[in-house]
Amino acid sequence: MGVNLSDIAAMGGRPTAAVVGLVLPRSDGSGETIRQLQQGLREMANQYQVPIVGGDTNSWTDGLVVSVTVLGEPIRAAVLRSGAQPGDWIFVTGPVGGSILGRHLKPVPRLIEAEQLVKNYELRAMIDISDGLAQDLGHIGEESGCGIVLHAAEVPIHPDAFELAKQTGKTALAHALGDGEDFELIFTVSAVDGARLLAAPPCPIWKVGVCVAEPGIWLEEEGRRSPLAALGWEHSL
Amino acid sequence: MGVNLSDIAAMGGRPTAAVVGLVLPRSDGSGETIRQLQQGLREMANQYQVPIVGGDTNSWTDGLVVSVTVLGEPIRAAVLRSGAQPGDWIFVTGPVGGSILGRHLKPVPRLIEAEQLVKNYELRAMIDISDGLAQDLGHIGEESGCGIVLHAAEVPIHPDAFELAKQTGKTALAHALGDGEDFELIFTVSAVDGARLLAAPPCPIWKVGVCVAEPGIWLEEEGRRSPLAALGWEHSL
Repeated sequence: MGVNLSDIAAMGGRPTAAVVGLVLPRSDGSGETIRQLQQGLREMANQYQVPIVGGDTNSWTDGLVVSVTVLGEPIRAAVLRSGAQPGDWIFVTGPVGGSILGRHLKPVPRLIEAEQLVKNYELRAMIDISDGLAQDLGHIGEESGCGIVLHAAEVPIHPDAFELAKQTGKTALAHALGDGEDFELIFTVSAVDGARLLAAPPCPIWKVGVCVAEPGIWLEEEGRRSPLAALGWEHSL
Repeated sequence: MGVNLSDIAAMGGRPTAAVVGLVLPRSDGSGETIRQLQQGLREMANQYQVPIVGGDTNSWTDGLVVSVTVLGEPIRAAVLRSGAQPGDWIFVTGPVGGSILGRHLKPVPRLIEAEQLVKNYELRAMIDISDGLAQDLGHIGEESGCGIVLHAAEVPIHPDAFELAKQTGKTALAHALGDGEDFELIFTVSAVDGARLLAAPPCPIWKVGVCVAEPGIWLEEEGRRSPLAALGWEHSL
């Protein structure tokens, strides 16, 4: 439910309804699984005021199946991945990395943030972080036909990324760039809108880079730009 | 898809979109199942002009899961099961019984018929036949707080019901009343609308009975009314 609501947020949309398909294993005689599942689905549906309007429930001897689809409508025009332009500033709505320590199981869809942003700014491209900050920004770059420069010092690193780095031996920045399932939004706006945003942010935002004409994705550290792939990120993503 | 479209028809609705959840067994290496499934879903979606707007597809080591949800909107007010009134005439949109000989796998949703009926007549109650003519009419009776009298001689019996009767030893009428998954529509209208309908039917319809004040469901044969339960139908349903 959270992941699907995040998809709606990432298009600058408003969720209108959810449908839920469930297949329950007959071995769950106590009905505890279904009770907890329904409770979780209802809590999030209520929180974001999305009615669960239908779907199907069945049982069988195989494993548990849960399929949630959320329907929505654009608040203004739908924000795609393909609208970024060279010169755009790139923002993220929250610190990232290390979600596997638990946050990946409790995605917080940035619906309110998306609405505030989309109502007041011309968002040129947007996506939510499911694969990882670098990889998802790569999707924006590819589909927009432009390049991405990330400023290493500006990337907001989640405390979980530091925590996880102690276990993995990778850097916290590597986790911030490479880990997925953060469900924060990444979006681009014109430099003019970017400056307006930083002057009076309508929600938590961090500027993390800029779009450039040359395709590719770079990391800028201490004034030096290097292709992300060349830094060995590709494999750690 | 067909069954869900039939549900929309049964409420006097117009389908607007479908979502499809699929979980494919990994053992289906050739992809033949998914290909045929997609083809069937698309054919029916195209035929009734319902866009498949989303859902989810996954694979695993357990069995095949298919979950289809169809969304729709009422053409006029939604037609419920609860609006039948004593004196109403009861109609069905096609011959029934014996669907298990094959028709149950190819449900034909009566969407065009429902639209023609709902646009020109005040349908008081409607349902599609999934459990069987008698049982589904029972649902209308119960929810409308009235009784149902079926006229045995007027029930349109499908050739499959005669065919099946040869195998089962039951009568063709028993199959017509008791068999399910016909997906024809049953509906009630005022006697005035009923007479108009018979005078110039907008689609194939058969009058099969009337609603009465006294709750219950009766079969009228050669002028004699008997409670359906007393005739032993309950068990054969």
